[in-house]
Amino acid sequence: MAKSLKLYYDLMSQPSRVLWILLEKSKIPYERCLVNLGKGEHLTDQFKEINRFQKVPCIVDSQIKLAESVAIARYLAREYQLPEHWYPTDSRRQARVDEYLEWQHHNTRASCATYFQYVWLRPRMMGSTVDPKRAEQYKSQLDSCLDFIEQVFLGHGSPYIVGDQISIADLVAACEIEQPKMAGYDPCAGRPNLTQWMERVRNATNPYYDQAHKLVYKIMPDSVPKPKL
Amino acid sequence: MAKSLKLYYDLMSQPSRVLWILLEKSKIPYERCLVNLGKGEHLTDQFKEINRFQKVPCIVDSQIKLAESVAIARYLAREYQLPEHWYPTDSRRQARVDEYLEWQHHNTRASCATYFQYVWLRPRMMGSTVDPKRAEQYKSQLDSCLDFIEQVFLGHGSPYIVGDQISIADLVAACEIEQPKMAGYDPCAGRPNLTQWMERVRNATNPYYDQAHKLVYKIMPDSVPKPKL
Repeated sequence: MAKSLKLYYDLMSQPSRVLWILLEKSKIPYERCLVNLGKGEHLTDQFKEINRFQKVPCIVDSQIKLAESVAIARYLAREYQLPEHWYPTDSRRQARVDEYLEWQHHNTRASCATYFQYVWLRPRMMGSTVDPKRAEQYKSQLDSCLDFIEQVFLGHGSPYIVGDQISIADLVAACEIEQPKMAGYDPCAGRPNLTQWMERVRNATNPYYDQAHKLVYKIMPDSVPKPKL
Repeated sequence: MAKSLKLYYDLMSQPSRVLWILLEKSKIPYERCLVNLGKGEHLTDQFKEINRFQKVPCIVDSQIKLAESVAIARYLAREYQLPEHWYPTDSRRQARVDEYLEWQHHNTRASCATYFQYVWLRPRMMGSTVDPKRAEQYKSQLDSCLDFIEQVFLGHGSPYIVGDQISIADLVAACEIEQPKMAGYDPCAGRPNLTQWMERVRNATNPYYDQAHKLVYKIMPDSVPKPKL
């Protein structure tokens, strides 16, 4: 089978890891197109032809060029017949998965990415200094968001964000929550539901989850518990 | 027909207007449940039972309580057989609509809402002062986002964000772009594509568009051109 599907990604990007794991786990043939964000490869005119937003991940498939990981995940579920649990066709379950996927933009994604970028990425990429007060403020927003996930999304004995099977919502959430670990933040500390759920998502998607997070595991400091590989 | 569908909304909220217009235009019977944000009615324990995120809009329908306007719009398209153009079943067109709906969270929504809240809402609700430098920074982000919409999404002669028919993407975008007008910002100035497209979306959804934006039109200062009613 010809690989007409191309994934443009960098495993340092949380949503890139989501699609990479999803494709690998689902055994969908695709061409791996690495875009090195650290080298600014997403900012070239050449890449702009592939993704007008100049971000990863994105895909090229037959005649469509598509960006935005959540939109891509939905497209893959339709076009490549992903196993039902990833994106349920049952209307109510799909609505619940959608609800998390929309909610996360200004919550999980915003708080994890902001903390990671401010404390870890910007000082390394741009030489910026970290204002402890501002870092504390971002940490507090991250704490609130993860507490909400601990108590509300995972607080009712449900093994996954939506019911008893893993969905795209879990993968999007877990890959995001891994990110601030590189900045020395332990998302699992004091959050037993989140701890067990993270391990559940990891087990359900390994060995790809660990492969995708190899660099994350390498960068995170010893103060953050590492998964047993 | 019994109205089993309830919409909780406040027309000062952009995504509330999206769903209100969508339901009115599609003639779907529903119960209007006003939640006065200005009076903090979304912050009560009673409302928390309806929406755990304590935001509007949200719906209650048969046995589902659902939040997040984009997730709700998709649910309505499925469950209430909205006209095809709102959320195309054609996979590629749907992917394009999804792409905008995911992209807008950290772009149109973030920049319009941030500018509006900082310059107009917070001073009135919380008595905060406006730092001109910060306001200029938010304005600049808003300018960039709208320039991108002008040039990229609407820059290729396409009457709507996705092709030649109005979709949820247009309604979500237009309702968001109306918001900073209340803070004296004219999104259409120097943007001919955006100007024509805003008018197109309004005409395609009137009289409901104007009804939903009644308070917006009333609040916006005379420096911003008002639609001819």
